[in-house]
Amino acid sequence: MSHSVKAFAPATVSNIACGFDVLGFAVEGPGDEVIVETRETPGIEILEITGDEGRLPKDAERNTAGVAVRELLDLHGRSNGVSIKIHKKMPLSSGLGSSAASAVAAAAATAALLDLEVDRETLLRCALEGERVACGSAHPDNATPALYGGFVLIRPGEPHDVVELPVPPTLTCALVRPHVEVQTRAARTALGDQVPLSAAVQQWGNLAALIAGLFRGDLELISRSLHDSIAEQKRAHLVPGFPEAQAAALNAGALGCSLSGSGPSIFALCDGTARAEQVADSMVAAVSDLGLGVDRLVSSVGARGVRVLR
Amino acid sequence: MSHSVKAFAPATVSNIACGFDVLGFAVEGPGDEVIVETRETPGIEILEITGDEGRLPKDAERNTAGVAVRELLDLHGRSNGVSIKIHKKMPLSSGLGSSAASAVAAAAATAALLDLEVDRETLLRCALEGERVACGSAHPDNATPALYGGFVLIRPGEPHDVVELPVPPTLTCALVRPHVEVQTRAARTALGDQVPLSAAVQQWGNLAALIAGLFRGDLELISRSLHDSIAEQKRAHLVPGFPEAQAAALNAGALGCSLSGSGPSIFALCDGTARAEQVADSMVAAVSDLGLGVDRLVSSVGARGVRVLR
Repeated sequence: MSHSVKAFAPATVSNIACGFDVLGFAVEGPGDEVIVETRETPGIEILEITGDEGRLPKDAERNTAGVAVRELLDLHGRSNGVSIKIHKKMPLSSGLGSSAASAVAAAAATAALLDLEVDRETLLRCALEGERVACGSAHPDNATPALYGGFVLIRPGEPHDVVELPVPPTLTCALVRPHVEVQTRAARTALGDQVPLSAAVQQWGNLAALIAGLFRGDLELISRSLHDSIAEQKRAHLVPGFPEAQAAALNAGALGCSLSGSGPSIFALCDGTARAEQVADSMVAAVSDLGLGVDRLVSSVGARGVRVLR
Repeated sequence: MSHSVKAFAPATVSNIACGFDVLGFAVEGPGDEVIVETRETPGIEILEITGDEGRLPKDAERNTAGVAVRELLDLHGRSNGVSIKIHKKMPLSSGLGSSAASAVAAAAATAALLDLEVDRETLLRCALEGERVACGSAHPDNATPALYGGFVLIRPGEPHDVVELPVPPTLTCALVRPHVEVQTRAARTALGDQVPLSAAVQQWGNLAALIAGLFRGDLELISRSLHDSIAEQKRAHLVPGFPEAQAAALNAGALGCSLSGSGPSIFALCDGTARAEQVADSMVAAVSDLGLGVDRLVSSVGARGVRVLR
């Protein structure tokens, strides 16, 4: 008997200025929907992908969702046949964790489809394997918030720790996406392998203060901590409109503003929805003035993670 | 009319494994006592230094305490004459913030002596100026806990933030000091100017998790976070006995163990006093086995900061 399960995983903002590779949060609205179905014959097949303008590989061994499902089956010694439909409800290469969302949704849907007893650690491992194939490396700062929801810290290690952080109730995210494209690999290359010790000290001092600010609900401390001493200046030139949007956001009263992941999406954290709407408007105006198209979104910080919709 | 004021500032542990240059806490017991007295003629004079084996400069312009007092007077436009006696009740060059303790105690005592209206930020600025002269650079991770007490995070910046961190009630520090000497400047030089990005990500992931662990009172998370990816391996060779003491501490059940500042003192964080005593004994045995002399101390984490004793 064939049946199907649908799952949705949200878009995510990663890095969060001073939290390069270790911080991320989920946003409301955009995300990826994955529908999995049992099939008669063994093997994983991608039946359909929508919303990607034909750009994602349908070969299951090269697709982030296909690899995540393969990993899940392998871990459980299962040889079921699974077919996958992916509906991208967020832009590709946007810095919002598109490949992570597909991988997380695919793994969660398949676990439900096959009634596998599986914890979040295992689902994360599968999603990261998908990311590794799609992006060439597995950075958990999108997949983790897409899975857990909320605002999470990932302590790197074997195994890593996922720390769910408290979020002050009025903390709100304004997001804009200039219609330009940044390749994740190019953005990684721009960083180089070495960083100045002095910049690293700045970064971890800011990150430590950001964590303390979240626990205390101290928006002023959060604001003073939202600076990126490592990646932002090396990547800014890859994102037309970023300097202008950042200046506009801070001028409009944002607590802080930086690139989401490696861009081109730009997030600003704000105190309250009304302020976040103003900040989003200001960023949109700044990017539009350059003749670029731009999307906008206002979201709580730390929306729900993946949900399975049978 | 001449009168005198005495102040005591505690020894401090800085860096705390993953918090290079941004974390420190005060310990109970060792520290520096400074007695200041008004004198008839303007100018700052160091009358006496004990406990330094004659090694510290008595020239007030080259002594950390003298410079801190000078800075305080200058900030208040005062030309009083002040004489200073310094009783070092902790070893020099031990990695326990000896120069910071003298500077903090001297500034606090002088503020009380002259009834100056002065906040902690100002006292810290004076102490850091003293440190800058004595050490060639002003790193606030000893002076800040010596002044504020407790376990503090210093977010670098202009101005920096001092964040007083919560300390789980059973968190206890075992400290040992092998009788070897490490020059702070040599320890700084060993670090170099650049660090691998991957090691920096490890470091700030651990630091962020340590801060979260302190807020949550999660000793297991604290334990998993107490690793230094940046300084420890570059400095370990400067401290005979460190690898042996660290292995002994972890084997005896310490939550984590690393160099205090640039060493030679070695701290281990432990769950409870009984465990800390065992860990201290184990570290002492490991260092003694190498034929080195060694001191030991067990202290709460985050003792009181400077106190003025009129």
